[in-house]
Amino acid sequence: MPASYAYLGPEGTFTEAALRTLPEAATRELIPYVSVQSALDAVRAGEAEGAFVPIENSVEGGITTTLDELVAGAPLMIYREVLLSITFALLVRPGTKLSDIKTVSAHPAAQPQVRNWLRNNLPDAQWESAASNADAARLVQEGQYDAAFAGEFAAAMYGLEALETGIHDAENAQTRFVLVGRPARPAAPSGADKTSVVLWQRDDHPGGLRDLLGEFATRGINLMLLQSRPTGAGIGNYCFCIDAEGHISDRRVAEALMGLKRICLEVRFLGSYPRADMKAADVRLPGTSDEEFVSAADWVARCQDGRF
Amino acid sequence: MPASYAYLGPEGTFTEAALRTLPEAATRELIPYVSVQSALDAVRAGEAEGAFVPIENSVEGGITTTLDELVAGAPLMIYREVLLSITFALLVRPGTKLSDIKTVSAHPAAQPQVRNWLRNNLPDAQWESAASNADAARLVQEGQYDAAFAGEFAAAMYGLEALETGIHDAENAQTRFVLVGRPARPAAPSGADKTSVVLWQRDDHPGGLRDLLGEFATRGINLMLLQSRPTGAGIGNYCFCIDAEGHISDRRVAEALMGLKRICLEVRFLGSYPRADMKAADVRLPGTSDEEFVSAADWVARCQDGRF
Amino acid sequence: MPASYAYLGPEGTFTEAALRTLPEAATRELIPYVSVQSALDAVRAGEAEGAFVPIENSVEGGITTTLDELVAGAPLMIYREVLLSITFALLVRPGTKLSDIKTVSAHPAAQPQVRNWLRNNLPDAQWESAASNADAARLVQEGQYDAAFAGEFAAAMYGLEALETGIHDAENAQTRFVLVGRPARPAAPSGADKTSVVLWQRDDHPGGLRDLLGEFATRGINLMLLQSRPTGAGIGNYCFCIDAEGHISDRRVAEALMGLKRICLEVRFLGSYPRADMKAADVRLPGTSDEEFVSAADWVARCQDGRF
Amino acid sequence: MPASYAYLGPEGTFTEAALRTLPEAATRELIPYVSVQSALDAVRAGEAEGAFVPIENSVEGGITTTLDELVAGAPLMIYREVLLSITFALLVRPGTKLSDIKTVSAHPAAQPQVRNWLRNNLPDAQWESAASNADAARLVQEGQYDAAFAGEFAAAMYGLEALETGIHDAENAQTRFVLVGRPARPAAPSGADKTSVVLWQRDDHPGGLRDLLGEFATRGINLMLLQSRPTGAGIGNYCFCIDAEGHISDRRVAEALMGLKRICLEVRFLGSYPRADMKAADVRLPGTSDEEFVSAADWVARCQDGRF
Repeated sequence: MPASYAYLGPEGTFTEAALRTLPEAATRELIPYVSVQSALDAVRAGEAEGAFVPIENSVEGGITTTLDELVAGAPLMIYREVLLSITFALLVRPGTKLSDIKTVSAHPAAQPQVRNWLRNNLPDAQWESAASNADAARLVQEGQYDAAFAGEFAAAMYGLEALETGIHDAENAQTRFVLVGRPARPAAPSGADKTSVVLWQRDDHPGGLRDLLGEFATRGINLMLLQSRPTGAGIGNYCFCIDAEGHISDRRVAEALMGLKRICLEVRFLGSYPRADMKAADVRLPGTSDEEFVSAADWVARCQDGRF
Repeated sequence: MPASYAYLGPEGTFTEAALRTLPEAATRELIPYVSVQSALDAVRAGEAEGAFVPIENSVEGGITTTLDELVAGAPLMIYREVLLSITFALLVRPGTKLSDIKTVSAHPAAQPQVRNWLRNNLPDAQWESAASNADAARLVQEGQYDAAFAGEFAAAMYGLEALETGIHDAENAQTRFVLVGRPARPAAPSGADKTSVVLWQRDDHPGGLRDLLGEFATRGINLMLLQSRPTGAGIGNYCFCIDAEGHISDRRVAEALMGLKRICLEVRFLGSYPRADMKAADVRLPGTSDEEFVSAADWVARCQDGRF
Repeated sequence: MPASYAYLGPEGTFTEAALRTLPEAATRELIPYVSVQSALDAVRAGEAEGAFVPIENSVEGGITTTLDELVAGAPLMIYREVLLSITFALLVRPGTKLSDIKTVSAHPAAQPQVRNWLRNNLPDAQWESAASNADAARLVQEGQYDAAFAGEFAAAMYGLEALETGIHDAENAQTRFVLVGRPARPAAPSGADKTSVVLWQRDDHPGGLRDLLGEFATRGINLMLLQSRPTGAGIGNYCFCIDAEGHISDRRVAEALMGLKRICLEVRFLGSYPRADMKAADVRLPGTSDEEFVSAADWVARCQDGRF
Repeated sequence: MPASYAYLGPEGTFTEAALRTLPEAATRELIPYVSVQSALDAVRAGEAEGAFVPIENSVEGGITTTLDELVAGAPLMIYREVLLSITFALLVRPGTKLSDIKTVSAHPAAQPQVRNWLRNNLPDAQWESAASNADAARLVQEGQYDAAFAGEFAAAMYGLEALETGIHDAENAQTRFVLVGRPARPAAPSGADKTSVVLWQRDDHPGGLRDLLGEFATRGINLMLLQSRPTGAGIGNYCFCIDAEGHISDRRVAEALMGLKRICLEVRFLGSYPRADMKAADVRLPGTSDEEFVSAADWVARCQDGRF
C-alpha cells in the first residue's frame, strides 16, 4: 500500500494545514486532490492509504459532500479526526496597503466569516469568488485580484504577505476534518473516543427515529452529530449520519450498535476513533459502565446455570 | 436428595389435584404441609426435592404468601407451572338431599365462587368457614356440617358423594400453581416459556418503573404478571414480581435481564419454565428473534475487526 | 345526608384510632361495620356520608379487599388519607402477670408484627386467631384467652390493662387508611397531594404498561403505589391501581390523566387528596411546573393566531 | 401591503415555474431576487407580501441557505408548499444539432442530474458552470456556450429550442418550495397539513433529542423532515428543523408543541400549511384523534368537578 494520504487540495488550504497536525502525516506523501470525491476514490482504488477531508464545520454543519461519499459506495472507515480553528489572514502582494485594495477573493465558504470585517475595513472592495482560498492567493500573486482571504500559512507559498491576521466574524469557528481509509480494525480505545454510523430506517412510522435514538439514550450514550441525508429514494427519504460518544469496544456502544442493527434496515459502521477534543465520554447514567455490563452478563450466565 | 414433593395440604385440595397432573409427580412421594412457608422451607432445608404451591388465581391475583416467600430468604427457582380450572362440587354424606342442608362449609377463598349458586339453591344455608376445603369435607364426614364445597376428587377420600358438580360463579376461574426447587440449571426452552424475576429499584424517581419495563418493551417481550410487594423498608416501598414471555436462553430475554441487572438495585431470577398454556411467545416486534440477535452480534464483531 | 362515617369495625381497632385523628370525625357519628364491603356499601346506599377503611400497609402492600371494592361497583372517591404507625400492646385482665399467660390472641394480620416478641418473651404461649384485635381483647375480657395483642387504646374499652406496649417486629410498620365518599368535587390542592386512578389497558401488548407509565414519567410525576388487580376476565388479566404525586388541578397531572384516558380502555378516577405525609410533590423535571404548562399553552395559542 | 411575491431568480428557473403553479401567484407581481436571503429580507422589510424559495430537494436534502434564514432573524412563517419534479431540457439556438455542441452550461446543482445523459450523448462536451440554469440559457442565447440544461419553460424566454427534454439521472428527483410570509394566522386545516418548527435543546445530554422526538411519537405524529443546523455557538451545537404531519389546530399537534415548548430552550413555530402531496396525516395510533383528545379533556373536567 502506498505510504500516501490524499487530501482535498489545493496546497495551502486549511485542509492541508489540519492534515499536517497529524504526526503520521510527517511520514506520508501528501497528495492534493481536486475534490472530496476524487480523494476518497483514490483510497477506494488503493492509490492512497488514507484521505483527509473536511466533514463538519461550525457554520455549515455536516459537510454533505463528504457525508454522501461515506454513506454510499464501497465502505470506508474514519480513523482520526482533527479540529481546526478557522481564522483568516488578508494576503496581499508585498507593499500593498489597505487603501490600495479594490478586489478581494476567497472560496465562497469564507464569506460568512469575513463579512463583518469587510464591512468595517473595506466597505467598497468587490468580492470575487475563487475555487479555493489557496486559488485566490494564487490569483493575487498573478495580479488578478488585490487581496485574498486564506490561512496565514498560505502566504509564504504564494509569495504574499499577511496584511491582517486573525480575521473571523464568528467566535469558535472551527472545521472538523477526518482521515478516512479502507475498512480495518479500529484503533484501540483511547479513553476519549467517538463512533460514527449511518442508519437507514426499516420503515417510516411515528416514533421510528425516536426508537433508533433510544438505543443510544437508554445506554447513556450522548450524540455529537445527527445529520440527515437523502437516501436517493425520493424527497422525504433520509438516512441519518450519527456520531456518538464512545468506542465500539465499550460494552454500551457495542450493545447499542447491535440494537440498531436489529431494528434498522441497514447500519453502516464508519469507525471508532479518538476525539480531537480528547474529552472522555460522559458516563452519567448508572449501570452503563463496562464493569456493570460485564458483571450483568456474568450474572445472566450464572442464572442460566442455576448458580447464584 | 429425597424423591419427594412438598405441597400445600391437606390432601384432597385443589393443590394436590393440580400437582397430580404433573407426570413427574407419579414418581415422587407427595407430602402435604400446613402452609406455603413450611412447604418451601422443606425445600430450602433439603427435606424435599420440590414444593408445589399456588401462586396466582383469577380472583385474588398474585398470591402474596407465596410471592413473599420467593422474594425473600434463600433463593428458590420455579421449574414448572400448572393451570387448574376451579369448579366446586357440593359434597355430602351419602343419602343427604339438598333440602336437608342447613350448614355449608369451605375455605373462605371458595366463597366468591359459590355465592350465586348458594343464593339460588340454598338461600337459607348457614356458611361456616374451614381451614381448607378438604378440612370442610372432613367436618362433613364427621357430621359437624351438612355439606362442603370442595373439588369433586375429595369425595372418595372422605366417604362423601357429590350432590352437585361444576359449581363456579365466575367463568374462567383458574388457579396457577408452581413447582419450586433449589437453584439449578433451568429446563431447556420448550418453545413456549416464561421467565420470572423480582426487581428492586435502585432509587425511586419519576420514570423509574417505566424504565425497568422498557427493558422488556424495547425487546418486544410481553409481560404476563406484574405484582408489587412491600420490601419491608416501610410503607410505599415496593419490589416487583414479574412474569415475562420467553426463556432466559432467548437472546432478547437474556439481554433484557442484563439490562435490568445493570439498572436495578437487585434482581432475583426465579426461573424460566414451560408455560402451562403452551402458547408460544408472541414475537411481533421486528428485530427481536434469536436469529436477528445472533446476526447483529456477529456484525458488531466484524465491525470490531474491520471486516464487513 | 347523614352526618356519619362508616368504618371497618369493631370499635377499638386501629381503624377507629386512625379515624379519630381526622378533625372532621369529631363532628360525625362513627359507625362500625363488619367488613370493608359493607362500610363502602353504606356510602353507596347513602346511609353514611363517608367510609373509613385501610387501603395499604407496610407488610401486606395494597389491601386487596379495599382496592377491589373501589375498582368495581358504583364509583367512589377518596377524600382523605391517614397514616398510622402500628405498634401493639399486650392486653391482659388486671393482675395477670407475664408468667400467667398460656394463650394469646389477635387478628392473623398482627402475627408477623409480634412473632419475634413472642419468641423472646412467651415462647410457649399458644396462638389463637381472632376476627379482629378488638375481638381478641373482648375474648380476654370474657376469660377465654389470657392475653390479646391490640392497640393500647383498646385496653380501657374492654377493662384490660397493658402489660407491655410498643411491640413491633418491623420498624416503620404503618397502615394507610382512606376516607371514601360518593363522587364530588375534590378538595382544593394543599400543595402536597396525591391522585389515585385505576387503569385498564386497551389491549395487552409488549410495552403496553410501559406506555401507560410513560404518561406519568414524561411529565415528571412520581408514582407512590402500583398495585395490579384481576379484572375478572380470567387469569393474567389485570387492571392497575395507581397513586401518583400531585393533584388533578396540577396541569401536569391533568394532562397525564388526559393521556391515559385516550390510550386506556378505561380510567377510573379515585380522587385527589392531601398526602398524609404532607411532603410536597417533587417537581424535579424541567418543564413540568404549572407556570411552564400555562406559558406553553399560551404560546401555542399565540402561534395559532400568528402573533409571537 | 404590496401585492407581490419575491422569488429566487432569475426568471426562467424552476423556482419561477413552481411559483406559477400556485393560483394566488396569478394575481401578484412576481419579482426575482438574486438570493434566498434577499427574497426573505424583502418580506421582512415589507417590500413583498411573500417570498418563494426552495427548501428541500431529493438530492441535497434540506436546503441550508433557506433553513438558516428561517431559523434566525425576524420570525417568518410558511404558508404554502409546492413540489416540482425536476427534469431538464437541453436548450440550444435554433438550428443547432447535437453534433454541433462543444460546450454545455447549467447551475452546478444540475450536474448530478444530467451526468449520465452527458456521458452517453455528449461525452466530449465541456461543462461550464453558470450562476443559474436561466443564466446558462442566456449565455447560450448570447453565443457564449452551445447548449444549456434548464427547464423546458425557459426556451421561449431566451429564444432557444429544446433539442431534448425529460433529462434526469435520478428517478423521483423533486424539489420542494415554500411560500414564506410575515407571521399571521395559519390557514385553516385542509385535512392534509404539515407543521414546521425549529427546536433548540435546553442542554445536551444523553436522550435529549430522543425525548424531543418523543413528544411527537407518543402522540402518533409522523415526522417528514429532521434537519440539524448549527446554532452558531461552535462546532457540535445544533438546532433541529422539523416538519411533522398535521396542523397546529389538531389537538395532538398542539399538545406536542406545548410539550416541546416546555422542555426546549426555545421553539420557533414556522407554520402549519397544506401538504403539496395532499396525503392525509396517518393517524394510526389509537387515542390520538381530535375526538379522543376532546373527549379526554372533557372527562378530566368532569373529574375535577366530581361528576362522572
